[in-house]
Amino acid sequence: MQPQPLILRKDQERRLLAGHCWIYSNEVDTDETPLKGLEPGQPVEVISQRGRWLGYGYVNPHSLICARLLSRDRSQPPGPTFWLKRLHQALSLRERLYERPFYRLVFGEADGLPGLIVDRYDDLLAVQLTTAGMEHCRAEILTALEQVLRPQAIVLRNDTPVRELEGLEQGVEWVLGEPRTEVRVSEEGLVFAIDPGRGQKTGWFFDQAENRKRLARYGVGQRVLDVFSYLGAWGLRAAALGAQEVLCIDSSTEALQALMINAERNGLAGRIQTLQGDAFEHLRALREQGERFDTLILDPPAFIKRRKDEPEGLAAYRQINRLGLELLRPDGLLITSSCSFHLGRETFQRLVQQAAQRNGRRIQILEVGQQGPDHPIHPAIPETAYLKTLVVRAWSGD
Amino acid sequence: MQPQPLILRKDQERRLLAGHCWIYSNEVDTDETPLKGLEPGQPVEVISQRGRWLGYGYVNPHSLICARLLSRDRSQPPGPTFWLKRLHQALSLRERLYERPFYRLVFGEADGLPGLIVDRYDDLLAVQLTTAGMEHCRAEILTALEQVLRPQAIVLRNDTPVRELEGLEQGVEWVLGEPRTEVRVSEEGLVFAIDPGRGQKTGWFFDQAENRKRLARYGVGQRVLDVFSYLGAWGLRAAALGAQEVLCIDSSTEALQALMINAERNGLAGRIQTLQGDAFEHLRALREQGERFDTLILDPPAFIKRRKDEPEGLAAYRQINRLGLELLRPDGLLITSSCSFHLGRETFQRLVQQAAQRNGRRIQILEVGQQGPDHPIHPAIPETAYLKTLVVRAWSGD
Repeated sequence: MQPQPLILRKDQERRLLAGHCWIYSNEVDTDETPLKGLEPGQPVEVISQRGRWLGYGYVNPHSLICARLLSRDRSQPPGPTFWLKRLHQALSLRERLYERPFYRLVFGEADGLPGLIVDRYDDLLAVQLTTAGMEHCRAEILTALEQVLRPQAIVLRNDTPVRELEGLEQGVEWVLGEPRTEVRVSEEGLVFAIDPGRGQKTGWFFDQAENRKRLARYGVGQRVLDVFSYLGAWGLRAAALGAQEVLCIDSSTEALQALMINAERNGLAGRIQTLQGDAFEHLRALREQGERFDTLILDPPAFIKRRKDEPEGLAAYRQINRLGLELLRPDGLLITSSCSFHLGRETFQRLVQQAAQRNGRRIQILEVGQQGPDHPIHPAIPETAYLKTLVVRAWSGD
Repeated sequence: MQPQPLILRKDQERRLLAGHCWIYSNEVDTDETPLKGLEPGQPVEVISQRGRWLGYGYVNPHSLICARLLSRDRSQPPGPTFWLKRLHQALSLRERLYERPFYRLVFGEADGLPGLIVDRYDDLLAVQLTTAGMEHCRAEILTALEQVLRPQAIVLRNDTPVRELEGLEQGVEWVLGEPRTEVRVSEEGLVFAIDPGRGQKTGWFFDQAENRKRLARYGVGQRVLDVFSYLGAWGLRAAALGAQEVLCIDSSTEALQALMINAERNGLAGRIQTLQGDAFEHLRALREQGERFDTLILDPPAFIKRRKDEPEGLAAYRQINRLGLELLRPDGLLITSSCSFHLGRETFQRLVQQAAQRNGRRIQILEVGQQGPDHPIHPAIPETAYLKTLVVRAWSGD
């Protein structure tokens, strides 16, 4: 399909020239190039009001972000050669940084492939197409992935609500190889079994791998509480680092069952206990029981998914961190995360400080971690920087 | 000396209640408690307009920050017991995190000791008193340091211009043990000789130690350029990690001589070359000569020391990063730092992005490092978070 021109309104090319790749519908000159004439996912060439060629991209007239740029090189239109080049660029970074083939291989915008997520579990790829534009190129992209990585299996994890914003259906589909119900992720000497077709998101939270490594640097003490534990990536790490008692809390019975199997496999089951249910309620109960921990890990799901969730989400972050700090022994460590893009780093730090202040505790932030380097940040696209993990020492009641 | 009351104007206690410890002169009710009646460094009790007791601190009527809080616990006035407690709290963190006694032991405000910096080089302490209040307590503080750490030598590195803002004299003084012209810092298997009485700042840049460790994670390639190298902490690390050619640039002949001695001691001299002079000029010359590097390290001094330096400082950061990116091979790594508090992280990222954009290079930020955990961040005192180190991959010309 030949790309159609998409002409921007006057001076609306600035964000693109600064390196971002999104175009909002109000930035398009719809008199010149009406959006309603275009199909979701259709390829376009984006052009400024003054006729400057800005790049190849794709549109979705039904989405607020109505187009995204893919290539700024006129000689490189999206197509088989383009996908291969981008995938090789993404792979070369990961191969440089990871000894073993377990990582996020493609992180959308930051890898120059907006709308595409690929996680690599050795010979299995979990792929997510989040836009109509990428859906449109699905066959070409899958071919390129097979060519570059020679996987044995590919599962499309298109069961994500963000597809609804693009008018796409949700679903899981095995497009290469036999469906599998288990793959094993190896992380710093521990092995975790995950269900690639059913696990949360694309199966594993690679984005926290680097922060989990940091536990070794800081030490965890004897008693650890892992809140929102999912499959136990944090909790088992803490046990492997020497914690004698690790309590893992999650709302999913299934996740906790898988966690205990993982614990057994790694010879750590004797040190792990689980609590199923609402994290807030369990934390309150633990507080009433006078329980205290040396290290507390708070790795909640995004409480602020969209800007309109902000007031409620902020309250949830405030509450969970306040409860967390109350359960911490003197000189204990709080490892607290937020994966909400809409919660800025400064606001998050302030909120944790307020929680400490209310508990009459002094805190020091020892490190601020982010998502690992397989989720690189595109400095012109703030949305690519979403994870904040604070390593906090709560040192005294003074 | 009995503490004098210092009464704040209406509603001026908010910052203090949020955890900050600074009081500006315009926040004091000078009708009730005139500042001019107080001596620089004199102890005070800070009280809100409504009579709420806020803490013990000290004043300096000649400084814009006219007072700082030391203790918020009425039963813990500054004095021998108080200094011991604070030093033990600071030491317990470092002993938890460091295998060897080389670190910043006290990082001022973030360790509850505003105006005091202590670096530990095994049995030698380098101490800096930056306020009249701490100068006033000098004898008590030194006694407490001797009691807690049993050092063989203490040097006062009071040769810092910030003392002038407090009306204090600058100078270096050995207050315990024989003056030494060399101590050896051990960092991840490398040994560096520094001059504790004359080296930059308090001798060694412990704040970058954690970021230097990161080089191992990312790899450095064959050719490395270390700009503003000082004693070679970055450059020698790169050589130890396998770089064949490391070029170190610094304006100080003395520093470069010491660097080469360090290189020889560590068996790395064959891979190290030095260039003395202005970094900007050398980078331009290297560019003209068509030189290219796999990894470039930019660790400049603070280009923005005070807010008024901002326009000039921003231009310098922009220029050095632009030059740096021009010298980078395809898929090369830029490790770029700013220790200017006034340059925010977002602005720094944007500036590096603009530099890349001008060079027609796409970049990905793989990690944003900060000062190490021996320089903890006080979340209510933004000024304690000053160092930003971006690990940047410049991946292609597209």
